[in-house]
Amino acid sequence: MKTIIAASSNAHKIKEIQAIMSKFRMQVVSRDEAGVPAFEIEEDGETFEENSLKKASEIMKITGQITIADDSGLMVDYLGGAPGVYSARFAGEECDDTKNNNKLLTLLKGLSPKEKTAKFVSVITLMFPDGTAIVARGECKGRIIDTPTGENGFGYDPLFVPDGYDKTFAQLSEDEKNAISHRAKALEKLEILLREREGFNEGNC
Amino acid sequence: MKTIIAASSNAHKIKEIQAIMSKFRMQVVSRDEAGVPAFEIEEDGETFEENSLKKASEIMKITGQITIADDSGLMVDYLGGAPGVYSARFAGEECDDTKNNNKLLTLLKGLSPKEKTAKFVSVITLMFPDGTAIVARGECKGRIIDTPTGENGFGYDPLFVPDGYDKTFAQLSEDEKNAISHRAKALEKLEILLREREGFNEGNC
Repeated sequence: MKTIIAASSNAHKIKEIQAIMSKFRMQVVSRDEAGVPAFEIEEDGETFEENSLKKASEIMKITGQITIADDSGLMVDYLGGAPGVYSARFAGEECDDTKNNNKLLTLLKGLSPKEKTAKFVSVITLMFPDGTAIVARGECKGRIIDTPTGENGFGYDPLFVPDGYDKTFAQLSEDEKNAISHRAKALEKLEILLREREGFNEGNC
Repeated sequence: MKTIIAASSNAHKIKEIQAIMSKFRMQVVSRDEAGVPAFEIEEDGETFEENSLKKASEIMKITGQITIADDSGLMVDYLGGAPGVYSARFAGEECDDTKNNNKLLTLLKGLSPKEKTAKFVSVITLMFPDGTAIVARGECKGRIIDTPTGENGFGYDPLFVPDGYDKTFAQLSEDEKNAISHRAKALEKLEILLREREGFNEGNC
């Protein structure tokens, strides 16, 4: 079992990452559990890639261990890709999921279902102690509905119906979501890239 | 007088670039004038930098001459930076300035002036025949107003009032806009970087 430090302090994200990484005999430990002092990493990049790399890099420098970071968000076509990297703070610095969801609904009010296409994006970075990194991007396409529905997940999950489904991410079980989510797809790509990285799998997978 | 090929086919942008570059004894020639066959460069980057580099690179490869490209757009804080790189096609592929402006006004309807802060961003790339490039970013902060005002400029200019002014970009004269615009600021930075680039100025500036 290999230990990986999660750069995220978002318990939901860590849970999803752990659920998938455990298949590869990797144990994900949060930055708090790893003893990293609490501090805010400013996510000021213009892309998910920038933010993901920044988070992995800062935590890896502190711990000296393999670190995994996720930067993710919702891109709504009608809004030219917004909220994108601003997903978590769309309704301002003092916002929460409800405020963010309400703001999104206000902006999309009156549009037809066809006009409300969107995708969730996740960029996962696995950074090694030597500073090299594997970066994998996953996307999940779908659409935004008019009323928050479902109790699972987090963020914009109650408003997002993935293509091929008639339930929101928040109505799907954890296992169902982890089978199709943007984060799952990013982690699948990460696995492929990891297997290509010579030596990493020895005795692990 | 040095000739530079403009990667843009936007006459407004070329005019603004020429107005500023002429100070440095550089003549900007449009890609059409330079005999570049008409083709669409897909602006599919996630950042202005990506798109600007791509445009400069594609035209430089064809002409073999120094090429200047601009990628620019409007970033509205309330919209998490949208329309951003989608500024020109915010209202869809078949849109025009009026449709884009109307879409923006609809999204910002009912907000107070303080909530409608925004900035114009321009990223100018000057690419040399050896493939090296100088990339300079300029920003102009301001706010969005409720009614399109003014006849000059293009794009979102009739809706954008730069900080410190009570007129929109479209109400300012060319000279006034070129003194403070995002594109002017990017070109000023470009000039500094150019002067640092050994040998470029010989006999020109």
